[in-house]
Amino acid sequence: MDTSNIKALIFDVFGTVVDWRSSIIRQAQQFGQEHGVEADWDAFADAWRAKYGPFMNRVRTGELPWTNLDRLHRMSLDVVLEEFHITGISEEAKDKFNLAWHYLDPWPDTVPGLYRLKRKFILAPMSNGNIRLMTDMGKYGGMPWDCILGAEVAKHYKPDPESYQTACDLLMMDPKDVMMVAAHQGDLLNAQKVGLPSAFVPRPMERGPNPAQKPDPTPDPSFTVVAKNFVDLADQLGS
Amino acid sequence: MDTSNIKALIFDVFGTVVDWRSSIIRQAQQFGQEHGVEADWDAFADAWRAKYGPFMNRVRTGELPWTNLDRLHRMSLDVVLEEFHITGISEEAKDKFNLAWHYLDPWPDTVPGLYRLKRKFILAPMSNGNIRLMTDMGKYGGMPWDCILGAEVAKHYKPDPESYQTACDLLMMDPKDVMMVAAHQGDLLNAQKVGLPSAFVPRPMERGPNPAQKPDPTPDPSFTVVAKNFVDLADQLGS
Repeated sequence: MDTSNIKALIFDVFGTVVDWRSSIIRQAQQFGQEHGVEADWDAFADAWRAKYGPFMNRVRTGELPWTNLDRLHRMSLDVVLEEFHITGISEEAKDKFNLAWHYLDPWPDTVPGLYRLKRKFILAPMSNGNIRLMTDMGKYGGMPWDCILGAEVAKHYKPDPESYQTACDLLMMDPKDVMMVAAHQGDLLNAQKVGLPSAFVPRPMERGPNPAQKPDPTPDPSFTVVAKNFVDLADQLGS
Repeated sequence: MDTSNIKALIFDVFGTVVDWRSSIIRQAQQFGQEHGVEADWDAFADAWRAKYGPFMNRVRTGELPWTNLDRLHRMSLDVVLEEFHITGISEEAKDKFNLAWHYLDPWPDTVPGLYRLKRKFILAPMSNGNIRLMTDMGKYGGMPWDCILGAEVAKHYKPDPESYQTACDLLMMDPKDVMMVAAHQGDLLNAQKVGLPSAFVPRPMERGPNPAQKPDPTPDPSFTVVAKNFVDLADQLGS
C-alpha cells in the first residue's frame, strides 16, 4: 500500500504506546503499602480500567457535560475503592493515587521507534487522556511528541468521529494524510470511517499474561499497515 | 521574589522565542527571487507583521468568527502584496509563501535555555500562532515543547483573559503556578491580571537595528523576573 502521502502519525496511547496494566499494578501496590491496605492489585488495575468505557460513555451520551479523563478516573476510583472495600483513604491521597495514570511505562520499542518516526512525520498522541496527563506521561517516559492532540482538544471522546476529524483539522491536513496508529482494532476502524489510513501494532501483553485476556491478534484486512512494533513501523514507513 | 511554586512556563513566541523579522525578510527575498519581483523586503516584513494586530482584532471583536493565525496571515498577505504593487502571483504560490511564518529562527539562547528549563518545568508555547504553525516551527527550530497551548486551544487571541486562563485550565494548575515569559510588556501585564507570574526577557533586536523601532527596555516594576535571555532565566529559576 502506498503511504508516501502521509505527513502525520497520531497514536492511541493506553495500551499502544504505554503498558498501562503493569504500571498501574506497580503503583497500586505502592499505594497499598503506604496505606497499609492489602488487595489483589492485578484485579484492582483491571477493575479500574474496566470503568473507563462506561464513564466515558456518560460524557459521550450527554449524561455528563464535558469532563476530562483525569476527572473520570477520579470518579471511577471512588467506585473501585468501594468495590474492593478499601476505606479510610483521604481525598488528598486519592487525588495523588489518581495521578498514577500520568506515569505509565512505554513499551521497550516505543521511544526508539518514535525517534525514528519523528524524523519524517509529525507525531502526536490521539488519546482520550487529557493534555496534562499526556504532557506528564511524555516527560516521564521520554516520548518526543511534536504536539498533543486527542479528546480534550476536540471535546469529544474516541470513537466519536469528531475526535479524529478535529485532529486532522488542527493539523490542517486531509484525513488521508494522517495515519492512526493503535493496538485496538475498533479505534482504527473508526478512524478509517473518517478517512484516516491505519497502522495496527498489536500489543499481546496489554492485558497481562492470562491467555483468556489476550486481544484478538488477527488484523482486519482493511488496515493500511500491520507492524510488529514501532521500530518495525518506522521500517515499513521508510523513516 | 519566591518562584519555588512555579510548575510550568508558557511562552510568547513571535519575538520572544524566535526572530520573526530576519526570518521573514530572508524568506521574502527568496520569494522575490523565485517570482522575479523586486521590493524593499525589510519594509515588506514590517508591513506584514503590522497587519497582525488589526486582523486579530477582527476576531477579538466578533467581526470575524474564530479564524486561526495561518488564515489571518493569508488574508493579510493579499493586502500587503497589493500595497507593494506585487501582482501575478498564483494562489498556490501565495499559500506556500504564507508558510514562512512556520519557519522562523530561534534566538541563539532559545534552544539551550529551553533544554535547561525543561528539566524542571513543563514548557509550552502560549502564542497566537495555531497548533500546526507552532508544531512546524518546533520541528524546524528544535524547540523541545512538552505540549502546545495558545490561542487556538482557547479560541481566544491574546490578550483576552480567556487565552491565559484556558492554558492554566488545561495544565490543571492555579495561575499563580504558571509563569508567562515574553519580550512584550503588554502580554505580561495582561497575564498578570489573570494571576500568572511573569518573566520579562527583552529582545532589543526584534524590530531590527533601527533605533526608532527599538522596544522600550525599561521593565515594569511589577514583573516577577527580568532575565537577559533564556539561559539567564534558567539560572534565575534554578533549573
